[in-house]
Amino acid sequence: MMRGFPEAEFKARTQAAQARMAEEGLGALWLTSEVDVRYFTGFLTRFWESPSRPWHLVVPAAGKPIAVIPSIGAALMGRTWIDDIRSWSAPNLADDGVSLLADTLGGIEGPVGVPSGYETHLRMPLADFERVKTMSAHCFTDDRGIVAGLRAIKSDAEIAKITHICGIAGRAFGRMDEIAGEGVALSQVFRDFQRLLLEEGADWVPYISGGAEQDGYGDVISPAKDDPLQVGDIMMLDTGAVWDGYFCDYDRNFAIGTASDAAQGAHARLIQATDAAFQMARPGVRACDLWKVMADIVGGGEGAGRLGHALGMQLTEGLSLTPQDQTVLHPGMVLTLEPGIDVVAGKIMVHEENIVITEGAARAISPFATSELPVI
Amino acid sequence: MMRGFPEAEFKARTQAAQARMAEEGLGALWLTSEVDVRYFTGFLTRFWESPSRPWHLVVPAAGKPIAVIPSIGAALMGRTWIDDIRSWSAPNLADDGVSLLADTLGGIEGPVGVPSGYETHLRMPLADFERVKTMSAHCFTDDRGIVAGLRAIKSDAEIAKITHICGIAGRAFGRMDEIAGEGVALSQVFRDFQRLLLEEGADWVPYISGGAEQDGYGDVISPAKDDPLQVGDIMMLDTGAVWDGYFCDYDRNFAIGTASDAAQGAHARLIQATDAAFQMARPGVRACDLWKVMADIVGGGEGAGRLGHALGMQLTEGLSLTPQDQTVLHPGMVLTLEPGIDVVAGKIMVHEENIVITEGAARAISPFATSELPVI
Repeated sequence: MMRGFPEAEFKARTQAAQARMAEEGLGALWLTSEVDVRYFTGFLTRFWESPSRPWHLVVPAAGKPIAVIPSIGAALMGRTWIDDIRSWSAPNLADDGVSLLADTLGGIEGPVGVPSGYETHLRMPLADFERVKTMSAHCFTDDRGIVAGLRAIKSDAEIAKITHICGIAGRAFGRMDEIAGEGVALSQVFRDFQRLLLEEGADWVPYISGGAEQDGYGDVISPAKDDPLQVGDIMMLDTGAVWDGYFCDYDRNFAIGTASDAAQGAHARLIQATDAAFQMARPGVRACDLWKVMADIVGGGEGAGRLGHALGMQLTEGLSLTPQDQTVLHPGMVLTLEPGIDVVAGKIMVHEENIVITEGAARAISPFATSELPVI
Repeated sequence: MMRGFPEAEFKARTQAAQARMAEEGLGALWLTSEVDVRYFTGFLTRFWESPSRPWHLVVPAAGKPIAVIPSIGAALMGRTWIDDIRSWSAPNLADDGVSLLADTLGGIEGPVGVPSGYETHLRMPLADFERVKTMSAHCFTDDRGIVAGLRAIKSDAEIAKITHICGIAGRAFGRMDEIAGEGVALSQVFRDFQRLLLEEGADWVPYISGGAEQDGYGDVISPAKDDPLQVGDIMMLDTGAVWDGYFCDYDRNFAIGTASDAAQGAHARLIQATDAAFQMARPGVRACDLWKVMADIVGGGEGAGRLGHALGMQLTEGLSLTPQDQTVLHPGMVLTLEPGIDVVAGKIMVHEENIVITEGAARAISPFATSELPVI
């Protein structure tokens, strides 16, 4: 599996953005987030974990993007396809890249688009954003969703990376009996599951979550408890592992010792819902259609919430499987199908798989679970 | 080691903020980032990895903070000390918490402070930020650095957590000969080092970095290569591991097989610089003073860059050890001392330790390395 992308891929992404910019009358895009900068450059580093330095990419109306970045990143950016790299010694409290960026934007003709819509954020201090706007005396607007729109349709090379990390997670899930069982604390299982993901080839495990209580769990975002797993618990583990900057995001449920009829039935229903959406998922179908076919099986109506989403360079990105989201599926979209169900009062079970939309039937990229709830 | 904090700690943080708000004439603080929300609530979840949902906390002039959050987090927030939790079913593209937040801010008297300065960012879409500002018809301003100022001085309980994760990392570094040596790829060492950190008790490893080349390394932010380590390489590993939401951030250098005189000399100089800053670090000394004592030893002058920073809930936060940063040290600050040195042309070596400022001499919280460069 090759790391990175051929230069042609970054060129194609840039040209696609520029075609859309021309339609929208934008003179440039100004990007500040890890994923947006990486999408157009291939600049991959975990250094973004530090909030101390802002990073900027300017995509002009024609030609290659221009990087305006801290000098600590200039060598690494120099190994990407980007030629024009303007850097300053950051952090500099007096002028933390502001004038350098304003100069760069000063030469742009036409309004500058900044991602401002759903799921975006500006990764720089608001005060410096205002300074750049004032200094560059430019017209700023939103990016018309151009970046999110491009990122929603994955290339074959991107899909291969997501498929690769899905396979890694599948092998880690397959070793669950090595680390979990009656008497083991869920917090220890969390720690060991991250270890298994690394052993199986993940570069990094930015996200895991889960839960374990009798017949289900109360929620899926709480930290793991130190209490030992008990017979009759339903344990769920969900992962966000990364390979070469791309995520998988799917889960597995396991019964500890024994599974009640309620738990077995709930799990079978979740698999039925997932399969129904999987069968339906093809170009032309809408996100809300996938939501409905699953919601009709798991129940809960509008209260069922979001039953899946897109993924890629982020754990979650793009469309949502909700009653409101009318996004039409296109080949190259990578989705999670994530139905949830009430098992007994106050206890839920959530199942999740990853698929890719193709010209015809969707393709499973996580190793789909079967109806039978595994017991460990 | 107890997880979380007693309620008294959150109350003290809130009251300290409110005292500062009164001085600055602010009616409320509006917080959107993971660390700022967690600082005042204890709301700890890795779910922030998903950018799909914004989270808000409003700290009023008096009384407990008010959480305005997606319903998926209401149960977990309900287990914190926060009583007033207002939630909506997110994501909702039509109104993603905007009107709920505007209503909440509507009742506030006086300007609303939003963190806008160095190292901050607004973790919500810019377009929704503008909508909230318009709908609430409020006066918005920056937070006068109140949140960063409070977070800079750690409580004993916070220091204990950072010390705990420093100890975990120390045990993982102590096992380096299990995973690294001639012929092993640095990418494999990265993976295994994360595994060791988890085995030794880290909850999570958000960040590692490093490098390995003959006599030093070119930079410290690039992904690890698949090339095998060679005799004479100097390998550095730096961690960002987390326990209960608090980071360590220090590194170790190792020579593969043998260390050249240049490498040994450089390492000894780095230890000398670290020790000099450690001896000097006490209340009243400025960040730039620590920078100078190290820069004078490692050379490089202004080009030496940042030679350390504060840390805590973030890998890097607060002051910087640079020539410009005049921040005065106070008891309770937790710092990294991070000198770097040119070993041979184009190759650097970086050393890093973690310390806490007390009323008297600083205290080491990472297990300080000695002058001798370890050979594996």
